[in-house]
Amino acid sequence: MFTSLGPLPFALPAPAFLIGSYDRDGRPNIMTAAWAGICCSRPPCVGVGIAHERWSHDSILERQAFTISIPSADMAARADAAGMRSGRDTDKFELLDFTPVKGSLADAPYAAECPAVLELRLREHHDLGTHTFFIGEVLDVKIREDCLDAKGKPDPALINPLLFAPVSRTYWNLGAPLGKGFALGKEAAGLGRH
Amino acid sequence: MFTSLGPLPFALPAPAFLIGSYDRDGRPNIMTAAWAGICCSRPPCVGVGIAHERWSHDSILERQAFTISIPSADMAARADAAGMRSGRDTDKFELLDFTPVKGSLADAPYAAECPAVLELRLREHHDLGTHTFFIGEVLDVKIREDCLDAKGKPDPALINPLLFAPVSRTYWNLGAPLGKGFALGKEAAGLGRH
Repeated sequence: MFTSLGPLPFALPAPAFLIGSYDRDGRPNIMTAAWAGICCSRPPCVGVGIAHERWSHDSILERQAFTISIPSADMAARADAAGMRSGRDTDKFELLDFTPVKGSLADAPYAAECPAVLELRLREHHDLGTHTFFIGEVLDVKIREDCLDAKGKPDPALINPLLFAPVSRTYWNLGAPLGKGFALGKEAAGLGRH
Repeated sequence: MFTSLGPLPFALPAPAFLIGSYDRDGRPNIMTAAWAGICCSRPPCVGVGIAHERWSHDSILERQAFTISIPSADMAARADAAGMRSGRDTDKFELLDFTPVKGSLADAPYAAECPAVLELRLREHHDLGTHTFFIGEVLDVKIREDCLDAKGKPDPALINPLLFAPVSRTYWNLGAPLGKGFALGKEAAGLGRH
């Protein structure tokens, strides 16, 4: 049996991304965003929903660029704080002890301490209501070297990403690995054993 | 130090949603999608990227509706399998032992066994390359009653959602709660202790 909660912005998991941009005066800014996800494989695109009144909103439009710094679970308090103050009157990089580094390809700053970073060029944006959904083309994915596995691929356990749960508005960490995609389901799909 | 991986569709966490739709013959279909996320708060919108060649792609356009069934971690093999076969020639609800139920508000079927379900009306869609990004307005969120907390809110630990990690292409479960949003960061934000 299901209980209907009505129309809500709900999904699990949601990320807790730190969105980096330069404002009109060239000041680096960072804000937390959980309304986000991958949109396309080729070209690789990731989208982020940002409320109109946010300082980052117009910054992204002006520079046509943004970054996504993926914080680790141990950065939860600092990531949460980045959603509680505005870049209008606060240098959140300084307040939260993150180091702003200008993207090598995108005209936007990222947080050098985070385990994973995406640099994006704004490709399109859509006004949906309270939020504009910014779709960026990923120009580069950067992984902190201590978060790569033996094959040089990003290791989710080492990245240890911060997760957000809407409605309960709680932060979580990543649990345990359960298996490989396009392999775990082979038997269930009737395609032989994995 | 960071290592650049180049342009890739990467983010952590990504979800492992089951997208439900009726095809042109009215047959219920379900497919796995990890390219997805919340886009807007009011109206609540959630977007899903689906490759052009997928059977669900045109079904969603024709019916202007879809559902998102959020599988639990113990459904990992069945959820993975839903991405390995096509609704063109396979009744995946039957194959994977999911029960199709017509949405109460959206003209699309969901999987009755899943702990959480979203019903969506297609609002807009954007061709980005390999994938079309479908943005749906959430008409209803349904939570299985055994996954509600004492206050009647969705409990992420009880929902126990399946997570996906791109690039390593691995499935994960949810870890431990770390604290409340808009509270955990108060001290770091200089807004008093939480």
